Amino acid sequence: MSIESEARSRADFEAGLAALAELLGERFTRNAAIREQHGKAETYHAARTPDAVIFPRSTEEVAAAVAICARHAIPIIAYGAGTSLEGNITAIHGGVCFDMTGMNRIVTVNEADLDCTVEAGVTREELNLHLRDKGLFFPIDPGANATLGGMASTRASGTNAVRYGTMRENVLALKVVTPEGRIITTARRARKSAAGYDLTRLFVGSEGTLGIATEVTLRLYGIPETISAAVCPFESLQGAVDTVVQAIQLGVPMARIELLDDVQIDAVNRWAGTELAVRNTLFFEFHGSEAHVREQVETVRAISADNGGGDFSWASTTEERNRLWKARHQAYYAALNLRPGSTGWSTDVCVPISRLAECIVATKADLAGIAMPAPIVGHVGDGNFHVTFVLDPERPEEFAEARRINARLVERALAMGGTCTGEHGVGLGKIDWLEAEHGEAVELMRRIKRAIDPANIMNPGKILRLPPDPA
Amino acid sequence: MSIESEARSRADFEAGLAALAELLGERFTRNAAIREQHGKAETYHAARTPDAVIFPRSTEEVAAAVAICARHAIPIIAYGAGTSLEGNITAIHGGVCFDMTGMNRIVTVNEADLDCTVEAGVTREELNLHLRDKGLFFPIDPGANATLGGMASTRASGTNAVRYGTMRENVLALKVVTPEGRIITTARRARKSAAGYDLTRLFVGSEGTLGIATEVTLRLYGIPETISAAVCPFESLQGAVDTVVQAIQLGVPMARIELLDDVQIDAVNRWAGTELAVRNTLFFEFHGSEAHVREQVETVRAISADNGGGDFSWASTTEERNRLWKARHQAYYAALNLRPGSTGWSTDVCVPISRLAECIVATKADLAGIAMPAPIVGHVGDGNFHVTFVLDPERPEEFAEARRINARLVERALAMGGTCTGEHGVGLGKIDWLEAEHGEAVELMRRIKRAIDPANIMNPGKILRLPPDPA
Repeated sequence: MSIESEARSRADFEAGLAALAELLGERFTRNAAIREQHGKAETYHAARTPDAVIFPRSTEEVAAAVAICARHAIPIIAYGAGTSLEGNITAIHGGVCFDMTGMNRIVTVNEADLDCTVEAGVTREELNLHLRDKGLFFPIDPGANATLGGMASTRASGTNAVRYGTMRENVLALKVVTPEGRIITTARRARKSAAGYDLTRLFVGSEGTLGIATEVTLRLYGIPETISAAVCPFESLQGAVDTVVQAIQLGVPMARIELLDDVQIDAVNRWAGTELAVRNTLFFEFHGSEAHVREQVETVRAISADNGGGDFSWASTTEERNRLWKARHQAYYAALNLRPGSTGWSTDVCVPISRLAECIVATKADLAGIAMPAPIVGHVGDGNFHVTFVLDPERPEEFAEARRINARLVERALAMGGTCTGEHGVGLGKIDWLEAEHGEAVELMRRIKRAIDPANIMNPGKILRLPPDPA
Repeated sequence: MSIESEARSRADFEAGLAALAELLGERFTRNAAIREQHGKAETYHAARTPDAVIFPRSTEEVAAAVAICARHAIPIIAYGAGTSLEGNITAIHGGVCFDMTGMNRIVTVNEADLDCTVEAGVTREELNLHLRDKGLFFPIDPGANATLGGMASTRASGTNAVRYGTMRENVLALKVVTPEGRIITTARRARKSAAGYDLTRLFVGSEGTLGIATEVTLRLYGIPETISAAVCPFESLQGAVDTVVQAIQLGVPMARIELLDDVQIDAVNRWAGTELAVRNTLFFEFHGSEAHVREQVETVRAISADNGGGDFSWASTTEERNRLWKARHQAYYAALNLRPGSTGWSTDVCVPISRLAECIVATKADLAGIAMPAPIVGHVGDGNFHVTFVLDPERPEEFAEARRINARLVERALAMGGTCTGEHGVGLGKIDWLEAEHGEAVELMRRIKRAIDPANIMNPGKILRLPPDPA
């Protein structure tokens, strides 16, 4: 670019920011601290701050702001709770961060239809608090208190997915602002439809690269009559995983079945003050009528015993259950706590469950003798597990080792018919693996991106590499 | 187009057909009877025959044939069992019909992962016959013995969707030949993935307009320990529908819950020789362990009694159950049988279940006093129901009346947050309603179509109207 055209383009960019400032008043900011906070990645990815942050309050305001950005070729990054793990919200090309947390209204709850519509900035905990008195809940639970717009955009899942599915199955419709600033709705509230291309599923998992979701319509579920949770330590990792696989194959409708390896259990004990046996351990939760839960528990207890499982410790009251799942949910922070000042890197493969034991055992062997702590947690009922590398940010050789082990892990998962990312999304961290996983199909994704966002202003450089993204 | 360029284009078209004839030998035909059979619509849409029919035997052969068609701008229509209801396979622009029924191999069954991969021409009955001895089944059941490729392409569902979901939830991956003749796979076998745009869900429901599915990877389920089916007549339509809605809201995991109105029951009795009371009737099926099924039955029986339901007639043996569902599945043919020589027109709205009773009762009022029989059947657990107009093909005034009542019905459903098509797809019959339903979002669908199939050779004129489609 010549000096003159660069100056023109810089002036145009500044004119765009000025127009946004006029539109949003004090809900537009270039404050350095706020920009930094919005460019920060949760994990190992380098931070890159946006040029400005805006705090829209309505779909119409988002649409007007997007239209300004489109006119001035300004990159747009939608931002929820900032809990994504693959650099999904880092402003690698600068631009404007749309902080959606001001859009936190619960629009409607249709109790009779078991669905609700919320603005994109509502968090899952806010929604469940609102639903509790109605006897309903929204099950998808990635651990972090993410926004529902953010969860839709990364196709999040978490501990309950084995029973209730992921955001893919539980988003009924989205209101979306397109890259031109138009407002569309992807579907109606009907439970099923055969009316044209599935735009809802196209936007779920698109990580803000095709548009900004401003409202999310979700499936809800009745709070089960009986909920029962338990923890069970195992003699071997293989035994724990075999228990999961056998229970799934028998069709036991477990609500949650989570693995924490011995290293992770130790980290949880130190962090949360629990006194769990330092063993490879399964966390279970069962939902249903009292009789149906009893039946599920009996089946799973018998399978566990056959595979070297110890006694079940039960969490029967709501408080005990919350304590148990809080310990599980804080696994990531418990891991980082093993090494004060550390940086986390969470891997995310998902494989067919018939290959899960083999995949975890081989990975565990790769981790033997490495320099850093690397606990394993897994949504094993889905075939999905995470190694958390607990890295010293001052030691580049640890990052190199993590990169090497992660590469072996992803290659192993792909060879087993698995995926490089079960739930974290592609962001920056999985772009090259996406090509390895999908091959020529990535070209179709590129065509879709170009067709919907020809100027590449929507979260550019994420999921797909298009010019002028750095290699 | 000038006479010369038309002649050139005709010569090019013929050259393309000659190349296909060379590729496929005797599996290429221009036989008039075969062409007619492949252009025939099941319902009220006018037939239009393709110029040729081919019978490919492998993905590679499909890819080679598509590449020839792409080179010569020849329209392509993929064809399975020919049971679609909205003119989805009619050759409105001529071209070549790809009859996929020769691709009927079951490629793999992964019992441990509860999934399988089949060629697109395998029918659901063939698959279930193959699976039976393994204790597994594939639940999606639209009634007709459709091919799994065809079911994926219309996003089919049917009687079991209330429990098991539709093709949207049960297709894990597709092998697809793109409009350029490339072979891609849309996803891996892992149960969940956040790796880029959801190409699987984009192709499911795309009715052959974006490519041809040659292999389908499907979720399977263990055959339940206990299956129990029953029929219950109701005093009123409202009472029957209220029973469904209340059972769904209580979270009873019914496997099937189907409504047949009094007119449909009468038709079934005449067709199948059954002696059901001529009343608005629910057909139920329950799946689970013996205790869990008993619990479900008790709950539903209590709800039915509260809503004016009569005695449950049980089908306990496999034979009785098969007879019961055969009667349900043949509802469409039973309806046509009310008037020999008639043509059927099946409506397909789906609404949020809180509006279902209101929608069905208002529709029933519209049907009072019309000239033709018009029974109602419904997958009422999903909010989806069909009116079957039984038309005299010689009486255009009946078609006009069906069109008028269908328009009122679709408008009513859209106003209730519903969809114009729950499971039949758009084909030719719902193109205008798609615009009414999705508004500006249809433009996104058009962009996707143009991006993936820029020459518009894949089932042109279906789902979306693009030049040069007739208005």
